[in-house]
Amino acid sequence: MSEKKPSSSELKNDRFLRALLKQPVDTTPVWIMRQAGRYLPEYKATRAEAGSFMDLCENADLACEVTLQPLRRYDLDAAILFSDILTIPDAMGLGLYFSEGEGPKFKNPIKNTSDVKNLPIPDPEEELRYVMNAVRTIRRELNGSVPLIGFSGSPWTLATYMVEGGTTKDFGKVKGMMFDAPETMHLLLDKIAQSVVGYLNAQIAAGAQAVMIFDTWGGVLSPEMYRAFSLDYMQKIVAGLTREADGRQVPVTLFTKGGGQWLEIMAETGCDALGLDWTQDISDARARVGEKVALQGNMDPSTLYASPEVIRKEVKKVIDGFGDGVGHVFNLGHGIHQHIDPQNVTVLVDAVHEFGAK
Amino acid sequence: MSEKKPSSSELKNDRFLRALLKQPVDTTPVWIMRQAGRYLPEYKATRAEAGSFMDLCENADLACEVTLQPLRRYDLDAAILFSDILTIPDAMGLGLYFSEGEGPKFKNPIKNTSDVKNLPIPDPEEELRYVMNAVRTIRRELNGSVPLIGFSGSPWTLATYMVEGGTTKDFGKVKGMMFDAPETMHLLLDKIAQSVVGYLNAQIAAGAQAVMIFDTWGGVLSPEMYRAFSLDYMQKIVAGLTREADGRQVPVTLFTKGGGQWLEIMAETGCDALGLDWTQDISDARARVGEKVALQGNMDPSTLYASPEVIRKEVKKVIDGFGDGVGHVFNLGHGIHQHIDPQNVTVLVDAVHEFGAK
Repeated sequence: MSEKKPSSSELKNDRFLRALLKQPVDTTPVWIMRQAGRYLPEYKATRAEAGSFMDLCENADLACEVTLQPLRRYDLDAAILFSDILTIPDAMGLGLYFSEGEGPKFKNPIKNTSDVKNLPIPDPEEELRYVMNAVRTIRRELNGSVPLIGFSGSPWTLATYMVEGGTTKDFGKVKGMMFDAPETMHLLLDKIAQSVVGYLNAQIAAGAQAVMIFDTWGGVLSPEMYRAFSLDYMQKIVAGLTREADGRQVPVTLFTKGGGQWLEIMAETGCDALGLDWTQDISDARARVGEKVALQGNMDPSTLYASPEVIRKEVKKVIDGFGDGVGHVFNLGHGIHQHIDPQNVTVLVDAVHEFGAK
Repeated sequence: MSEKKPSSSELKNDRFLRALLKQPVDTTPVWIMRQAGRYLPEYKATRAEAGSFMDLCENADLACEVTLQPLRRYDLDAAILFSDILTIPDAMGLGLYFSEGEGPKFKNPIKNTSDVKNLPIPDPEEELRYVMNAVRTIRRELNGSVPLIGFSGSPWTLATYMVEGGTTKDFGKVKGMMFDAPETMHLLLDKIAQSVVGYLNAQIAAGAQAVMIFDTWGGVLSPEMYRAFSLDYMQKIVAGLTREADGRQVPVTLFTKGGGQWLEIMAETGCDALGLDWTQDISDARARVGEKVALQGNMDPSTLYASPEVIRKEVKKVIDGFGDGVGHVFNLGHGIHQHIDPQNVTVLVDAVHEFGAK
């Protein structure tokens, strides 16, 4: 790396990192899943300039630009790398493309054991160098204002796309493989987990100051299958991560959408924080696992369709629900929707800092 | 009613009704959500003959035919009325239609308080007479072989379609109304709840021997909103239902998909049984609410993509998970998928009766 990288000690705002580690903060920190996204007109303009969605991810300057856009509008306490969870399977040779209105697809989905055996573990500074370049560029441009979050999809979540060849309603192929060829599925998940460890550690080396694992589809599994096919591999990743950089701890957050029933076993993985979707009561969640981990969440994203008064009231409910003391990062319970009014995000962010636990 | 209706006392197989009421049974009863559906070639043939989906629902003879088709193939312990949850909003004048590949839509969705005030409560023996005719026909044709289940969508679930005008990804309109105009939403839910009470009581009068309320979209709410906007209205319905017909109790089952975190408060509604999706451990669920209610579920529907050996193993896991004693009706955790092999359903049904709790 030839760029000068500011050390974490120069961070002007470290509320986010402190809250994830359950250290005292002056007020509750906030960031928003998909904060760089289609609800922002400036995002749409940059996206149009870039060409395809992957062109945007692969151009470090434009990826940096969209990462910073929400920080110019809102008083957010963290930036998150602009990228996609499917960069790893693409780097493994599956041929990611986006078909209009149908979401992501793979030219070469995984069909059998031999496909899995032939999968390479990508080198993050080779096939995924464009992601690391984006991390380095964003980190430099943030210039110590707020921390940068790196991320990856969970092995199970990536496997669903890799076996189905794209998005799916019923997960028939990937669950068919899980039930009928569990050894093949475990081999696949193990290769993905190895790839994720290398990928996240490279993001940390390039400047990510916290990392988050998105288990978007863990919630479609039964409890037994969740543990065996999703959680165990996230635990392996947590165990393999670099947990310190620039003399500061690098917190790790796990988020399984629809995984509220599994918070206790998620908290045992060694992670620092759990993401909560909005179907959980945050005070219940804190009572269950708050001694072990910090919590990130969990307002219903649809609240942003409501009026400013209602948004403020609902923000306060989440903050009061968590209660006094350390260990809360405010967020939505899932990604922000594309049709909400960007002004409402100002209301949300300011309300978090106003009502936030001191 | 001019048709001769056999009394429940003539039921040849009452395992299903007994299990819902936590009475002893010779083995675990089983039926399958969407058992009359597109995975069956004979269903597709009848559907093609009928014309549109609603034509099929509105023709009592054809609705009866598709209801009975799975009972000819499999040793099922209950039949369920073939119909749609959107019959009520259609009868309220919203103009239901099905657009190819996009699911159900309404010509006149609910936009504001005045739309809600103008909504009529349908007369089940007038606007919904075609449903009651189907119930009477099916009940006659079943001829006491197994009980017939009637059903309705929950008020919240119906309201999502009525306000969104069809299916939705983010529930922006209906949640916007819930947050910004809660009185309007409560008025709407109250009218729907009144309609559902009339509709289900008419189904019971026409011959339904058990009823189930499908809360397909309760799981997209926060705990506070679930209680206020979904559960409270299901409780009102339970309180208004006829609970006895032909000298037998008519059991009521509630099913909120994604509602596993709320089993305790669901069990307090006065219902007899709760449906479980497959993200819950049935032994945990029984420990939580098994004293109060029977449980229906909960194998992952995707298990039917697996081999017969794996299906048998997974059936046994659910049955062993529930354990000895009364109060279990086997089912999938959600509707059967359309692409599974119908032969695998034979494996499932026979395995339930073989391994079932005696």
